[in-house]
Amino acid sequence: MQLYSFFNSSTSYRVRIALALKGQAYDTHGVNLRSGQQRDAAYLEVNPSGVVPSLVDEDVTLSQSLAIIDYLDARFPEPRLIPADPVERARVLEVSNAIACDIHPVNNLRILRYLKDQFNVDEEGRNAWYRHWVAEGLSGVDALLQRHGDGAYCFGDAPTLADCCLVPQVANALRMKCDLSAYPRVMAIYAHASAQPAFVAAEPARQPDYIA
Amino acid sequence: MQLYSFFNSSTSYRVRIALALKGQAYDTHGVNLRSGQQRDAAYLEVNPSGVVPSLVDEDVTLSQSLAIIDYLDARFPEPRLIPADPVERARVLEVSNAIACDIHPVNNLRILRYLKDQFNVDEEGRNAWYRHWVAEGLSGVDALLQRHGDGAYCFGDAPTLADCCLVPQVANALRMKCDLSAYPRVMAIYAHASAQPAFVAAEPARQPDYIA
Repeated sequence: MQLYSFFNSSTSYRVRIALALKGQAYDTHGVNLRSGQQRDAAYLEVNPSGVVPSLVDEDVTLSQSLAIIDYLDARFPEPRLIPADPVERARVLEVSNAIACDIHPVNNLRILRYLKDQFNVDEEGRNAWYRHWVAEGLSGVDALLQRHGDGAYCFGDAPTLADCCLVPQVANALRMKCDLSAYPRVMAIYAHASAQPAFVAAEPARQPDYIA
Repeated sequence: MQLYSFFNSSTSYRVRIALALKGQAYDTHGVNLRSGQQRDAAYLEVNPSGVVPSLVDEDVTLSQSLAIIDYLDARFPEPRLIPADPVERARVLEVSNAIACDIHPVNNLRILRYLKDQFNVDEEGRNAWYRHWVAEGLSGVDALLQRHGDGAYCFGDAPTLADCCLVPQVANALRMKCDLSAYPRVMAIYAHASAQPAFVAAEPARQPDYIA
């Protein structure tokens, strides 16, 4: 398999965790979002949306991290990352989407760039924006996990899609120096999950396209 | 079933379409996002994330529109909105997530309010922001649908989750007076799907909490 990925992209990081959990080897093709490679004609041929990640598995080329992980779950069922039971899977998808729809999209690179370039928002303003949406989102995620989750991971003692979403989001927030002490369940899960081999292997700094 | 919904919320609109397609009756509890009802203690008891929609089905209370529709697909399988075949479902989830993660979240009410209140972005600036992300996102969605979709709906001649996401997004963009002529496949699907009874029943103006 081929993964078009950017080392620092949270959505790429999610898919790298899933691939590592499933023990699947792949080649990384770095798409440098800082220099705008996602808009190169060659990459738009792979993914006309011009976003990372994209996965190529034989004749299937697919984008959107949650769609990719759902596909990987069908293609390589062990370990299963999205439970089969309707209520269990709903809980996993609820937390995954709370991160993937309510926190990440408003804080990614292109958004912060637009704030700077079009609205002249300074670094302090951009950091306040970032921290606001992280606080707003993670307080809800922490409450959902306290209400419905238990165990070392988000839901029990094995990782799911929710952990694939949570670890990159928390890593990103820590990089941006957010105070996350108000989210104890989130941080306990992060401390456990991020130390496991598959999560370590997926870290930005360990990727072939890493830029120091 | 009980649906906590705001008439003008795209994410609520998605779930209303899914419920109508499945012929399921429900009670609507309006949560007025304009007056901040989503932060009322009573609503946070239902959904600690403080976002709409939330569905209550007997002892299951669930938020996040995509998680809710996945759950409804298990609970009421006819008609199926997320295909079972791994590649077909990947295509549906790819387009659904491209809308739910890349377009909608950056343009919803709370974001536009933050731009206004914290960064003093005027209406013209907010409209430019809105149109920018719609153009960026829908051009990718149109390309994906041209590449992988066919038929009257996004994928074939029956509606899927992708149509539940596409119709509210396009309706929203038209309300914001975006020029959508560059997305012919998106607009052909919208013209067809939005005229069908289940989609009509889910329209904002037909909801009990509608505010003229």
